[in-house]
Amino acid sequence: PSQDALAAATQRQSQLTKPAGALGELEQIALQLASLQGRECPTLQRPWISIFAADHGIAAAGVSAYPQAVTAQMVANFAHGGAAICVLARQIGAAFEVVDVGVLSSTAALPEVVQAKVAPGTANLLEAPAMTEDQCLAALAVGQAAVARALAHGADIFIGGEMGIGNTSSASALATIFLNTEVVQLVGPGTGLDAAGVIRKASLLSQALQLHAARCHTPLGALTTLGGFEIAALCGAYIAAAQAGLPVLVDGLISSVAALAACRLHAGVRDWLIFGHQSAEPAHVRVLAELDARPLLQLGMRLGEGSGAASAYPLLQLACALHGQMATFASAGVSTRDA
Amino acid sequence: PSQDALAAATQRQSQLTKPAGALGELEQIALQLASLQGRECPTLQRPWISIFAADHGIAAAGVSAYPQAVTAQMVANFAHGGAAICVLARQIGAAFEVVDVGVLSSTAALPEVVQAKVAPGTANLLEAPAMTEDQCLAALAVGQAAVARALAHGADIFIGGEMGIGNTSSASALATIFLNTEVVQLVGPGTGLDAAGVIRKASLLSQALQLHAARCHTPLGALTTLGGFEIAALCGAYIAAAQAGLPVLVDGLISSVAALAACRLHAGVRDWLIFGHQSAEPAHVRVLAELDARPLLQLGMRLGEGSGAASAYPLLQLACALHGQMATFASAGVSTRDA
Repeated sequence: PSQDALAAATQRQSQLTKPAGALGELEQIALQLASLQGRECPTLQRPWISIFAADHGIAAAGVSAYPQAVTAQMVANFAHGGAAICVLARQIGAAFEVVDVGVLSSTAALPEVVQAKVAPGTANLLEAPAMTEDQCLAALAVGQAAVARALAHGADIFIGGEMGIGNTSSASALATIFLNTEVVQLVGPGTGLDAAGVIRKASLLSQALQLHAARCHTPLGALTTLGGFEIAALCGAYIAAAQAGLPVLVDGLISSVAALAACRLHAGVRDWLIFGHQSAEPAHVRVLAELDARPLLQLGMRLGEGSGAASAYPLLQLACALHGQMATFASAGVSTRDA
Repeated sequence: PSQDALAAATQRQSQLTKPAGALGELEQIALQLASLQGRECPTLQRPWISIFAADHGIAAAGVSAYPQAVTAQMVANFAHGGAAICVLARQIGAAFEVVDVGVLSSTAALPEVVQAKVAPGTANLLEAPAMTEDQCLAALAVGQAAVARALAHGADIFIGGEMGIGNTSSASALATIFLNTEVVQLVGPGTGLDAAGVIRKASLLSQALQLHAARCHTPLGALTTLGGFEIAALCGAYIAAAQAGLPVLVDGLISSVAALAACRLHAGVRDWLIFGHQSAEPAHVRVLAELDARPLLQLGMRLGEGSGAASAYPLLQLACALHGQMATFASAGVSTRDA
């Protein structure tokens, strides 16, 4: 981030024809983007969306309202343009790709899918670590490769999304470690468990966390033991984006847990993160607080896929346009306050 | 509103490839627009923005951080495209007009301004009713005429905005009557009063409300006595839009008070209102609660001009696109829950 650009943008903001602060968060977003892009007037024109899909061994324990086959079915839906994020990508003019980083079945028959499978699903973390460390490093590299593609495309903001039946379980377990709390504080309905299902999910995750406690003392250890391939890929993408100076628009709970993991691995990542929305999944507000993040939207969304981030993107464009195109008090001949 | 279209849209929503409710407020917006447009899949393509500008006699009492001349200066800024709402209108592809419904000085030298001046500013409501009833009716008709222009243009949603130094005072006084509360509960900083200024503003408005109590027993009486010409114009526009079946996207405090006045005059108006944002001005949350309204955005904006509503417009477009373009479980071959 550039302090000079931030100072110039702050000075510009103070001269625009509106009371100071009257555009609220839209002003703050413009200033953040100015500092990230290193120029007084930021612009956004080429958003990029990578969806990482993977299966979770814990799905065998029945922690989701949907069958595990939905992961692969939704990958096909992404490939064919029918999923929510596909519609949003078209609406906001984003480049879009879906990456198989660990779907249980083969997705090779879908030419639109980027093939980067680390393994056909994680191990069931109720019984064993979800991944080996080599697998976790490979998944991080899959995210890094996605950012390389985004940069080659000329992207100016990166949106990561995920699909993986069972992944709120994985994310809740990871958040429990990163927030140093009890899993029962964080577990929610995911795609639609009822109250008994939520209690059972919390009980299973509590057992898993006891089983793996010794493996979770480092961020990489926790990610390896409790994570999903798609969560590790998002984590790797966020780190790579920050290192390349590419701003990131973060989605909901799963993405935010990946972002928190990325910040624990490299604290400098945080500067590059903009938070799109606050999910209805109860753990999200806690994870956001840990990241000191105030998302732009609170619309009760809980879909994942990058859908909350993509929905927030138009606000970033509006913030840039307001910052760059509004008249100043001097140019418009408008009196300043208390004049 | 069409119950048949609502039922068809609700049925469609249940078949889209996502967990039920996972798109949160975006689903509700799509359903509301479906019922308002009378079709299963609503679309929005031609937004229209009318900004009503007028001066307030109470500005002479120093209730604003800005001099009264700013109203006319900002009208010129609207005409020349430099104000925040002008930038937003260009970004969202909205037709845009600014209407002089009561600016103190002449705006006739600006050919872009719609000339509809009822009087050069209201009377100072600390001393006399702000308007005569004839003036109030004339201002309501100015709003009605704006909706007629929007309809002639083929607009599919109406955004009203306002500019008027002193108009948070007028709006706070009106809200005090409509909410049957004490003015001190509602007065805020407007464009930037300090704490002492807010207390003084509350004290002045309390005196005015005592002076005019007998005139404020009917909605039209309150609007005539305490309103501004731009608030009455917004009120008239909202009524006319509802009567014509044109959905309305409501902006912040001033607009919401006008919307509340409209609903008190004609209860059927409420169905046609969508609320864009929750202002940082403290009275707004109370007025929204009275209207049973949950705005889409909470971005700490407090500018007026229709800026919060225009900022929310892209979310309406996304909601329509998601509703109309997502694949269904059947068409995409995705399993339903608990399958």
